[in-house]
Amino acid sequence: MKTILENVRKKCPLIHNITNYVTANDCANVLLACGASPIMADDEGEVEEITSICAGLNINIGTLNQRTIPSMHKAGRRANELGHPVVLDPVGVGASKLRTKTALDLIEDVRFTVIRGNMSEIKTLARRMNAAESLYGHSAQQDTSLTDRASVERAGITRGVDADVSDKITRENLQQVISFAKEFAGRTGAIIAITGAIDIVADKEYAYCIFNGHPMMSSVTGTGCQLSALTAAYVTANPDKPLEAAAAAVCLMGVCGEKAYTRLGKEDGNASYRNYIIDAIYNMTGEELEERARIEKY
Amino acid sequence: MKTILENVRKKCPLIHNITNYVTANDCANVLLACGASPIMADDEGEVEEITSICAGLNINIGTLNQRTIPSMHKAGRRANELGHPVVLDPVGVGASKLRTKTALDLIEDVRFTVIRGNMSEIKTLARRMNAAESLYGHSAQQDTSLTDRASVERAGITRGVDADVSDKITRENLQQVISFAKEFAGRTGAIIAITGAIDIVADKEYAYCIFNGHPMMSSVTGTGCQLSALTAAYVTANPDKPLEAAAAAVCLMGVCGEKAYTRLGKEDGNASYRNYIIDAIYNMTGEELEERARIEKY
Amino acid sequence: MKTILENVRKKCPLIHNITNYVTANDCANVLLACGASPIMADDEGEVEEITSICAGLNINIGTLNQRTIPSMHKAGRRANELGHPVVLDPVGVGASKLRTKTALDLIEDVRFTVIRGNMSEIKTLARRMNAAESLYGHSAQQDTSLTDRASVERAGITRGVDADVSDKITRENLQQVISFAKEFAGRTGAIIAITGAIDIVADKEYAYCIFNGHPMMSSVTGTGCQLSALTAAYVTANPDKPLEAAAAAVCLMGVCGEKAYTRLGKEDGNASYRNYIIDAIYNMTGEELEERARIEKY
Repeated sequence: MKTILENVRKKCPLIHNITNYVTANDCANVLLACGASPIMADDEGEVEEITSICAGLNINIGTLNQRTIPSMHKAGRRANELGHPVVLDPVGVGASKLRTKTALDLIEDVRFTVIRGNMSEIKTLARRMNAAESLYGHSAQQDTSLTDRASVERAGITRGVDADVSDKITRENLQQVISFAKEFAGRTGAIIAITGAIDIVADKEYAYCIFNGHPMMSSVTGTGCQLSALTAAYVTANPDKPLEAAAAAVCLMGVCGEKAYTRLGKEDGNASYRNYIIDAIYNMTGEELEERARIEKY
Repeated sequence: MKTILENVRKKCPLIHNITNYVTANDCANVLLACGASPIMADDEGEVEEITSICAGLNINIGTLNQRTIPSMHKAGRRANELGHPVVLDPVGVGASKLRTKTALDLIEDVRFTVIRGNMSEIKTLARRMNAAESLYGHSAQQDTSLTDRASVERAGITRGVDADVSDKITRENLQQVISFAKEFAGRTGAIIAITGAIDIVADKEYAYCIFNGHPMMSSVTGTGCQLSALTAAYVTANPDKPLEAAAAAVCLMGVCGEKAYTRLGKEDGNASYRNYIIDAIYNMTGEELEERARIEKY
Repeated sequence: MKTILENVRKKCPLIHNITNYVTANDCANVLLACGASPIMADDEGEVEEITSICAGLNINIGTLNQRTIPSMHKAGRRANELGHPVVLDPVGVGASKLRTKTALDLIEDVRFTVIRGNMSEIKTLARRMNAAESLYGHSAQQDTSLTDRASVERAGITRGVDADVSDKITRENLQQVISFAKEFAGRTGAIIAITGAIDIVADKEYAYCIFNGHPMMSSVTGTGCQLSALTAAYVTANPDKPLEAAAAAVCLMGVCGEKAYTRLGKEDGNASYRNYIIDAIYNMTGEELEERARIEKY
């Protein structure tokens, strides 16, 4: 894990972000904090070139719109051609047909290295892909039932961008979630990172469970977006170990959430906490990350 | 006021924000700080669904554009159909014909629970609606004179997004502003929140005057936007008392501005102050809010 | 330099920003910190009016798109008609044909008071303008070779939004860079501000070299964007001394980067540093700026 962190600081990978305007600033500062460099660019007329000069791509659908959706596809396909890692953060998928359709279309069109979301988001994706496959063979793009509200409801609607309470990962349902994550990783070909009270990072064979983090992280907007940006930097700087790199990024975020929490004074709240988390990422060393990591392999 | 604050923390209302990209991050963190949850979504293709899964809607025209204006109308009308509270923040209305027309069109098309702005913005709205009514009966939508620069100037142009100095609310003109606010509330059917050195929150019958706050709050970008987001959360979690809820939100913002000010060290400036205000919102309790509130009812 | 800073605080110039969504919030807070007022507005339907009620304009192409490019031209031309200062920040120029073309088209179409970028960005502009001039006489707009990847590469591609390492300004190449800056200022009619380890601010006759600043500033996203916003405020409030005003703004940013650095605690990182820089701008006085400035005139 030490080497993984140090590779990011050594290689300073340039990461192309097509991301939402709510947390773009934090994502840029988090990338700088971990040793990478950010570019935010979302116009269809330039995303392929921008992706070409970068080493990795981070696609986040948080404030997706008709103008940026085609940009996501173009950049993703180009990154695939170039062999660059691509991360998908399907923010709020299930909250609207547009989000669900966009995420499924992207997964159909682009080979993702990592898909990172909370349990509600990942479950929505898996259910919708199942539905599409059972109804139509395999293609999500032909999934006309996406326009059918009842089906969407059957498939489970996320509570906006926040995780559903019923979707908590606990020690009790851990094995079940691990199996689900591995199975979904197998179907998509992507590493699946499910973040929550316990985080799971899995490919089709192995899963890492990460027990770091702090509940107060959910009081800061965009910690998920920040983690996706970090993950893009980590898998980009560690091309031979994408699973370990993604797990290290998730671990880093959790460890920094813990460290930042201990720094909070009596009058501090979520705004100071936001800063302290990014500060902690800036100061984190490979040694400290290894020491503080609470991670298990399954 | 204690119950009102606690209702927000208890109900965690999900608030849909169609807002500007300058202060979107702060609005999201402020909503989390007060106990609510934010979703930012502005694409025409999803705003109706997003609003449907939320409990309240906050429309802010700060960086309005041709793509997002129709989204504001669609989301607003859907929220009305569902009986969800809707807040309008007419940022910089009067600074351009597009802003003035958009705000007036929205007021014509959508039933707002609260309209919150500074004195210049609210006066611009009132004057423009008067002009439209006297010229054309009642419809702002037919107000072709909006394309006539001279009329716009007669109607008063705000100094961008900041309040005009001549528009200061003082103890001297307080009764006059209260009457104006009540009258405008009557005409629009919305609670009118005018914020400045003294804040006024009025429906057609009653007005609350709030004497909390600190002048340095105007050195932080988006404290107005943040308050509009807070207001949306407060009226949403307190559907039976929208006037009291809006007044409590205004009070909360002012009290937190005061608390945050006392926390400033010698080297702190507006950036730290921004964080301290949000931190104070995060830590505020119902008891402290009641204790510190300086509010009068008229 | 004292008078220049104080003129900004006295005149409170209203600055129109057409800028990127990554750093818009910081730019707004930096403008407030230095005593100016910000408006962010980028819709084609209102930019001319918004610019008209402002005193200066800041154009930043960081997240340019098909919708905002025409707005940049319209606002720039209107500002020229009104005699308002206009600053261009060609973020990431060279990273895509769209960025290069947009920056060159803007320079062709709008008379800029200041063009501010890092060495890679300014060199890209100069080379591309040279290429256009030698191939086609003088017009960048006819530069069809912009669609020719090989030419773009010959002309030098910036490493995204960050300065190329080979583009470091040192004591050794200082005279050479000064000559280049003066020559490019002569060709464009704009003051050229090249920021890096050493900053250069030049018109065709004189150049200021500024030795303030701290390397850690490059770990905060948008310090360049912030400086461009500051520069717009400074040249607007000091219309008779644009060169000195631009140099003062660059000096201010560097001095505040130094001051903020001394404030960093053991656990602070780039997020706290970001806040401390803006805080320092908020608290800076004319006396302190003069005292700390390390500036030479050539």
